[in-house]
Amino acid sequence: MLEALDELISKRRLSVLLVYGNSTFGNPELLYVVGASLARGGVYLKRRRKAPILVVSNIDVGAASKGLVSDVRTYSEYGYEKLLAKYGRDRVGPLLFDRILRKHRVRGRIGLYGRNDASEILDLSKQLRRFGHRVVGERHPSLLEAARETKSSLEVDKVRDVGSRTKRVFKKTIEFLEGCKRDEKHLIYESEILTVGIVKTEIRRYLAEENLAAPEDLIFAVGPRSADPHYTGEDGDLVLVDQPIVFDIFPQETGGYYFDMTRTFVIGKSSERIRTMYKSVSTAQQFAFDLAQAGCRAEALMNAVCDHFSSEGYKTIRDLARGDKIAEKIGFVHSLGHGIGLTIGEKPYLALYSDDNLKIGHVFTVEPGLYDPEVGGVRIEDVVALSDSGMVNLTDCEKILEIGA
Amino acid sequence: MLEALDELISKRRLSVLLVYGNSTFGNPELLYVVGASLARGGVYLKRRRKAPILVVSNIDVGAASKGLVSDVRTYSEYGYEKLLAKYGRDRVGPLLFDRILRKHRVRGRIGLYGRNDASEILDLSKQLRRFGHRVVGERHPSLLEAARETKSSLEVDKVRDVGSRTKRVFKKTIEFLEGCKRDEKHLIYESEILTVGIVKTEIRRYLAEENLAAPEDLIFAVGPRSADPHYTGEDGDLVLVDQPIVFDIFPQETGGYYFDMTRTFVIGKSSERIRTMYKSVSTAQQFAFDLAQAGCRAEALMNAVCDHFSSEGYKTIRDLARGDKIAEKIGFVHSLGHGIGLTIGEKPYLALYSDDNLKIGHVFTVEPGLYDPEVGGVRIEDVVALSDSGMVNLTDCEKILEIGA
Repeated sequence: MLEALDELISKRRLSVLLVYGNSTFGNPELLYVVGASLARGGVYLKRRRKAPILVVSNIDVGAASKGLVSDVRTYSEYGYEKLLAKYGRDRVGPLLFDRILRKHRVRGRIGLYGRNDASEILDLSKQLRRFGHRVVGERHPSLLEAARETKSSLEVDKVRDVGSRTKRVFKKTIEFLEGCKRDEKHLIYESEILTVGIVKTEIRRYLAEENLAAPEDLIFAVGPRSADPHYTGEDGDLVLVDQPIVFDIFPQETGGYYFDMTRTFVIGKSSERIRTMYKSVSTAQQFAFDLAQAGCRAEALMNAVCDHFSSEGYKTIRDLARGDKIAEKIGFVHSLGHGIGLTIGEKPYLALYSDDNLKIGHVFTVEPGLYDPEVGGVRIEDVVALSDSGMVNLTDCEKILEIGA
Repeated sequence: MLEALDELISKRRLSVLLVYGNSTFGNPELLYVVGASLARGGVYLKRRRKAPILVVSNIDVGAASKGLVSDVRTYSEYGYEKLLAKYGRDRVGPLLFDRILRKHRVRGRIGLYGRNDASEILDLSKQLRRFGHRVVGERHPSLLEAARETKSSLEVDKVRDVGSRTKRVFKKTIEFLEGCKRDEKHLIYESEILTVGIVKTEIRRYLAEENLAAPEDLIFAVGPRSADPHYTGEDGDLVLVDQPIVFDIFPQETGGYYFDMTRTFVIGKSSERIRTMYKSVSTAQQFAFDLAQAGCRAEALMNAVCDHFSSEGYKTIRDLARGDKIAEKIGFVHSLGHGIGLTIGEKPYLALYSDDNLKIGHVFTVEPGLYDPEVGGVRIEDVVALSDSGMVNLTDCEKILEIGA
């Protein structure tokens, strides 16, 4: 949580936390500390027990003032234009950082954060060291990873809200599919066989109506090809009846929080094999829910789910990790879940060999799945939060295997 | 261009180019060399005059095979699972990199690229150095910045295509606005005063219909508030007649190229002041077009536009850079343009003190603007490309100040 920054700065023996980037977009670390969308990004500087300072381009002062930092300054205050005129745009970066650090009399260890190109970061830190600054990196989990890992109740509410909107997108999608005609094998839309491309365009429209975006695309995978968990579904794929459809959406509010939800359904009648897989996956998710509480090792949930699948005769990724020569893509082939927030992949990781313990404030997915190239995939994914009164499922959306049967 | 990688690796005296990240999303460097969307990202390794290698998670092999790299391998081939079991998820990263570098007998200078958290990168490079690897950063422009700067004709076609779709979004928006009723001051939609929130939802819907997203939001700024170039327009703002509206969209094809276009218009009748500003901005853009050719300094275009505005009595950002005490937000307060591609902010920069010379293959915005807090802003923005037969405007979209008059 952002409130823990001072404590984390102390614990990690840093003098200052420096977060930067040329946009808050694609830079969750900067977005997190700034709390506003900055088209040109900025430099955030936080000393222990002092209020943070945010330095931005003249053009972003208005946007910055809507965020969390009250002390907003401009590059001009640090002589940016003169440096620019003297050294040019390609060289000005490290010199400007040096000015900012000197003006605020920063001494001691500087933790550097924010998502930027590796090459640029290595050069920046080299030059800052030449100027006499002590720039340091940290092993996982970095200070900001640790801070971002546990969510405040305000953040949980934001994720829940994106969840409610995601649910409406799901419901509209189901209504659209149920409204289509059918022949023996396919859905028919406007006298043509319905394709995944058309469905995805509908889904994107529903997302737009909820002011959500799907920056990392979405998965609508039909039939046996859904056995590849990351197969997103191609526009030309046909929407088949009586076949499993894995529908996975991970939308983001513009410049904000993500949600992540998967439902698997069959339009029409499911095969016995898919029905059995579905029951096993549902049970697995319930096992994980029952175990999810603060203090529990994240890996324990993963292991419980692997145990369950093994006991029902399915292979799991644990068998592969142990070196069993199984076909890689059969059974439970991925991890159980991951944290979400300003990204859709952060701590805690509900995975084999995870170092994470579950904590109050964790918000994460629980997404067991079974895959079989002969018949397809089944995955059910909810987002849950751990509060001081236990686990709360933020995903208020029905789970029904057969629709429009 | 990607074809220039070997030459750039030689010139910069690197042995190997290493690009990495935990997703291609938000990581344009990795997306560029991989040419496919990878949910879990990967490690790309390219030695001079050798075919590149891409190492990904088992789960992303299918997605990776659709990309540019034919030699796709999995982390498992480098003993990932055993490292994971022994060291845990938080520590496995640098060890896996070491394995990959050793297996491919990498010696000499390693250029490290890809957008990742600064703290993680500093720690990774420190540990790799301990393992005996020579990891280096580069000053701007880095090798990949230089490669990405000039676009192949295939890339130009992709940008142009996003441009055509963006134009359709613009036209639908205008049609929507023209279809609304009016009272003396406002547009009326379904018996209520039309708000910017409703317009933005419409625009997002049109974007969805074109399979475009607006991950970095969009600008629909009405009246005097449009004088802040980065004011995006709040949902509660009213759509006013006879007032300038700055409509700036910068959509992205999912996991692909951006476009960036601005039109300023008045629904109804423009004031004389806005009309004069509009003419001056149009003329400024034409001046820039006339100068835009390979070999020309990018700064020269910026200066020509500043000269033009100055000659017509407007202040510019150049006056501020020279130390004149002018109100910061009056006149031409930003740069003339920037490159676009897999990001909406890259070389070349058409700005004061830019180090860039225009080259064949450059794709960039030309976006002069004038701002006045009393009346609002006027900005006109097109995307152009420099080909061997001169400048090509990729923005086939009308420029009309007054609509529905």
